[in-house]
Amino acid sequence: MDLHEQAAQTVRFLAIDAIESANSGHPGAVMGLADIGVELFAHHLRYCPEDPNWPNRDRFVLSCGHASMLLYALLHLAGYDLGLEELRQFRQWGSRTSGHPEFGLAPGIETTTGPLGQGIGNAVGMALAAKMMGARVNSANQTLIDYRVFVLASDGDLMEGITQEAASLAGHLGLDNLVVVYDDNRITIDGSTDLSLSDDPVARFQALGWFAQRVDGHDRQAFRAAMDRAVAESSRPSIIAAHTVIALGAPTKQGTSASHGAPLGRAEAEATKRAAGWPLEPKFHVPEGARAFFAEQRARNRALYDQWNEQLRGLPEEHARLWQTHATKQVPEDLLDRLLASTELKPDATRNIAWKVLQQVAEHVPSLVGGSADLAGSVKSQIKASSSVLKGQYAGKNLHFGVREHGMAAIASGLSLSGFFIPFAGTFLIFSDYMRPTLRLAALMKIQTAYLFSHDSVFVGEDGPTHQPIEQLSSLRLIPNLDVFRPADPAETAAAWTHALTRRDGPTAIITTRQTLPVLTRPDGFDPNELLAGAYVVADSPKPDLVLVATGSEVGLALEARALLAQHGIQSRLVSAPCWEAFERQPAERRARVLPPGLRRVTLEAGVSGLWRGIAGSDGLVIGIDDYGSSAPAERLAQELGLTGAQVAEKVRAWL
Amino acid sequence: MDLHEQAAQTVRFLAIDAIESANSGHPGAVMGLADIGVELFAHHLRYCPEDPNWPNRDRFVLSCGHASMLLYALLHLAGYDLGLEELRQFRQWGSRTSGHPEFGLAPGIETTTGPLGQGIGNAVGMALAAKMMGARVNSANQTLIDYRVFVLASDGDLMEGITQEAASLAGHLGLDNLVVVYDDNRITIDGSTDLSLSDDPVARFQALGWFAQRVDGHDRQAFRAAMDRAVAESSRPSIIAAHTVIALGAPTKQGTSASHGAPLGRAEAEATKRAAGWPLEPKFHVPEGARAFFAEQRARNRALYDQWNEQLRGLPEEHARLWQTHATKQVPEDLLDRLLASTELKPDATRNIAWKVLQQVAEHVPSLVGGSADLAGSVKSQIKASSSVLKGQYAGKNLHFGVREHGMAAIASGLSLSGFFIPFAGTFLIFSDYMRPTLRLAALMKIQTAYLFSHDSVFVGEDGPTHQPIEQLSSLRLIPNLDVFRPADPAETAAAWTHALTRRDGPTAIITTRQTLPVLTRPDGFDPNELLAGAYVVADSPKPDLVLVATGSEVGLALEARALLAQHGIQSRLVSAPCWEAFERQPAERRARVLPPGLRRVTLEAGVSGLWRGIAGSDGLVIGIDDYGSSAPAERLAQELGLTGAQVAEKVRAWL
Repeated sequence: MDLHEQAAQTVRFLAIDAIESANSGHPGAVMGLADIGVELFAHHLRYCPEDPNWPNRDRFVLSCGHASMLLYALLHLAGYDLGLEELRQFRQWGSRTSGHPEFGLAPGIETTTGPLGQGIGNAVGMALAAKMMGARVNSANQTLIDYRVFVLASDGDLMEGITQEAASLAGHLGLDNLVVVYDDNRITIDGSTDLSLSDDPVARFQALGWFAQRVDGHDRQAFRAAMDRAVAESSRPSIIAAHTVIALGAPTKQGTSASHGAPLGRAEAEATKRAAGWPLEPKFHVPEGARAFFAEQRARNRALYDQWNEQLRGLPEEHARLWQTHATKQVPEDLLDRLLASTELKPDATRNIAWKVLQQVAEHVPSLVGGSADLAGSVKSQIKASSSVLKGQYAGKNLHFGVREHGMAAIASGLSLSGFFIPFAGTFLIFSDYMRPTLRLAALMKIQTAYLFSHDSVFVGEDGPTHQPIEQLSSLRLIPNLDVFRPADPAETAAAWTHALTRRDGPTAIITTRQTLPVLTRPDGFDPNELLAGAYVVADSPKPDLVLVATGSEVGLALEARALLAQHGIQSRLVSAPCWEAFERQPAERRARVLPPGLRRVTLEAGVSGLWRGIAGSDGLVIGIDDYGSSAPAERLAQELGLTGAQVAEKVRAWL
Repeated sequence: MDLHEQAAQTVRFLAIDAIESANSGHPGAVMGLADIGVELFAHHLRYCPEDPNWPNRDRFVLSCGHASMLLYALLHLAGYDLGLEELRQFRQWGSRTSGHPEFGLAPGIETTTGPLGQGIGNAVGMALAAKMMGARVNSANQTLIDYRVFVLASDGDLMEGITQEAASLAGHLGLDNLVVVYDDNRITIDGSTDLSLSDDPVARFQALGWFAQRVDGHDRQAFRAAMDRAVAESSRPSIIAAHTVIALGAPTKQGTSASHGAPLGRAEAEATKRAAGWPLEPKFHVPEGARAFFAEQRARNRALYDQWNEQLRGLPEEHARLWQTHATKQVPEDLLDRLLASTELKPDATRNIAWKVLQQVAEHVPSLVGGSADLAGSVKSQIKASSSVLKGQYAGKNLHFGVREHGMAAIASGLSLSGFFIPFAGTFLIFSDYMRPTLRLAALMKIQTAYLFSHDSVFVGEDGPTHQPIEQLSSLRLIPNLDVFRPADPAETAAAWTHALTRRDGPTAIITTRQTLPVLTRPDGFDPNELLAGAYVVADSPKPDLVLVATGSEVGLALEARALLAQHGIQSRLVSAPCWEAFERQPAERRARVLPPGLRRVTLEAGVSGLWRGIAGSDGLVIGIDDYGSSAPAERLAQELGLTGAQVAEKVRAWL
């Protein structure tokens, strides 16, 4: 058994032992991909286990996250801080070796994968980030960023639509630093791929502008040659369709779907070891040679790493500053003040205001880049002072994602994960539904991203119910760790951008209107930081009979209703609640000051009422919309849906 | 001006006038596609305006729904019941000519489109339905169903991932009755497609097993020849990439993105008419010839229609019965009784129980067909007594959608829209996020579909947070007109299937567990119809101190807690609430009987708490999970998350 074989078998048996021990997991793909994984870590990938976040490391993305033990075993053998005791804890409470790889749990996990297609999408973003960062910091004298991104993907990854979206854009942008290895094992969970798949992967990716090769994944020489060609390719992303055998080496389960999602079982596990001449005991056996096999590559990489650091230390001052603004994603501490100082206070649609704020933000935060899914003019996502990112031209800040919302979101996550950029990604709020699996993963990973969702209610008007969000605001709020910020006027819009840019531990959705909103007048001595507190008092009465709680466009509506109520002798407080998540993080005492327990509540939002019922309380009144809208001008819709100031005031009076 | 030209110009100017009148709409695509639209309705499509739901009509799907006026104008000219007065009401409150085509609003609208990619997905389902229905009812003597599906799609449609998923499966299944015309106008909203798209559409679809052609969309002869070849193709779906000019005929906006999403404006509209020699007034002008141009095709179609009806009338009795069961999607009225009679009462995972019920249901409801996104063995979606649908073999009931959740959902909608099938589509609950845009459209269209979502909570266990639903149950409930049914035991599972099959006006999600649940004991004299009422009393006390409200796996948990509370002298009622939507449709009086206003509430569900706060009320207690789960065995998770019977009882006591 040569060293490669020893390493590959070690990977297989570490996986088998871990999966048997957890009595849960996916052995088949690990066994099929062990050869390729070992080859990548031993001959191609640039990495530094001692500094796993080395900015110019190659990124390795296991898009088929169910093969997590492949990654854990390789990280262990390659010298990362992930000991055998961690592998023994596979899939156990509190361990760093989760069922699917989770970003942040262990070094070397570049992104959280499992839901298929997401990893490829992230990888496209990481590759794009390398091109964009390279265009900013590389020069004739030095190359600080030129990392490559290597992906292992399954047939499931390739079948997912998000992969098509991301791959199509990768081809368009000519991301030659991206190499996807497709684990073409002809087996899905249900059985043979004949049941559901007959795409020609090579022709398919060629049609998207990729360099595509086909190879036997167990033929080391052929695979290495293909990989060398892929890495050398200088204008297109690469895919290598590697034919492999699932559960290679398992006497009865090799080549069958039975090996995909369940442990081999003790008998088969032992038979596999026997067939390979592997000791049955001890479990988690790692022969000397298995680790040694990665030593040469580590030494080569260490030299690169040292050289790179020398380069970094030698950077001229201005260049070093530029590096730093990106490497730390610098954001000025007084961002809100700056933005408020330059925000014009006039009635406008918040999408327009957000766009004007974006121009300021882009000046203050150099690492901010982004764009929209072919709605630059509607969502208002263009940075005027910068150019577009196109094939071979990566210095700009404006990204054109095409009509690919899901891919856009995953690419944005990849840009964020790269370590160099704070990305924003925009579309109509209704289409946030297309992005939902990725939004969830970004929130789970706690990565910083801003989503710009415009056209935020039925007041979109004539486009009709297919384009009118009803449940989207609430359903986004349900995603743990995603903050939803729906500003009501210019000051709140400046706060929305501030929130998104200063919040480091999760994504923020900025929600804007198509229609014009009034400018709110705030009490004398208003502290602008209240804008960031999630909810605050906009207008008050000495002895309020009730409190109106509203968000975004409905704050203006609440103001109208409040004036009418006052004419009837009903006094009210008005609370604007642009970001309920932020409000819930406030101390209970502050929350009680804004929404005192005894004061009856009326909530107003042009969307489903469910979540607001808990906020309004049993004796409260919830004004919302619980059915689909309709195609008509916005004013007519407001009338028909009971959302004019007079109708709201009437409802409140009837309820009182 | 010949008649084709007259008809095409009429379509263009009807659209321009309607859009100018609404001051809102998308003229560019209508003008670019008018030639193709006229050609389709005048020479290729089989339809009967007098009987728009003729079961064997060809389906025309406008996937680029923003070109809605193209459809409305064509339906008007081709003789459908859609008068000029309706066209004048384009995008107005209460009209049948919505901003985007809405299924059910006007005859000839086969599906609701607008969110891109959805129409193509639906079309694949419709084409598949023709194959499947044909395999059931056609014979050597008669061909009852052999309709074709024609789609117009934009570059946006092609960029959406859902299109890839659906197209890949269409190629795999060899749906030669599907023809997609790709409006290759090289313009997106943001400008030239050069900004974001460089796929080779012909090569791309060839790689998916399609017959692909490229043609000048304004060259009538060439287009007709291409269409004839596409229709004649007998083993593959077809795509015709038709090069067109957006806003053809508009003097300054032709060929530009300015014509995409906004009215031309009065000056440009008039200049366009002048350039075409079209009268400026009256608006909505329809020359004689424009309608006459469709007369020949209507006569040909009428002959086909009469012939078809004769065939139907002449069907032998047994064959006629078979036809009827599908054409009416027959479901026995006593379905619940039948299912309860054959449902085994033993502890099991509800996914397993649902699978056993499915076997029964499939016998009782011949029009039921479906499958899963490559999770047949996990979600349990296989109908044992039937075969798989494969290329050329369409008689079976089991569909293998591959790892294509979003495409699966859209195809299921198409199967439902065909008029012949009640489809079901399954995956893990967590991946319902991938399907969300389609679920919403199915609910908006009020079409009958069943979604099978298994692995419904953190109790998935070891797979970890990427696979553990937290917010999905609640976020599905937020979609208006989607019913979410989460059964707790065998009887409720039978009810879940009954609900899904008897509910004609919207989709139902059946939510099942991975883990085993106990069998509930119900009070003496329990009326099984209560199972369909959304929520009902499972166990009661003469003088309850509180009511526990739980769903699915948490009903068993509540039972445990209830017993422990009783040991502490705390009496409680237990309400199982498998389908909150159904409960809300119950009369207020009945709801108050189940959940009396004065009785304090404790709710239990292993998911986000937001929606439950409104149900529990201000003085209630909500027990849920508001953060992501973790990779660990289910029992350990229950402990850590405070969801054991003892912990729940403790929380309730502390709260009391």
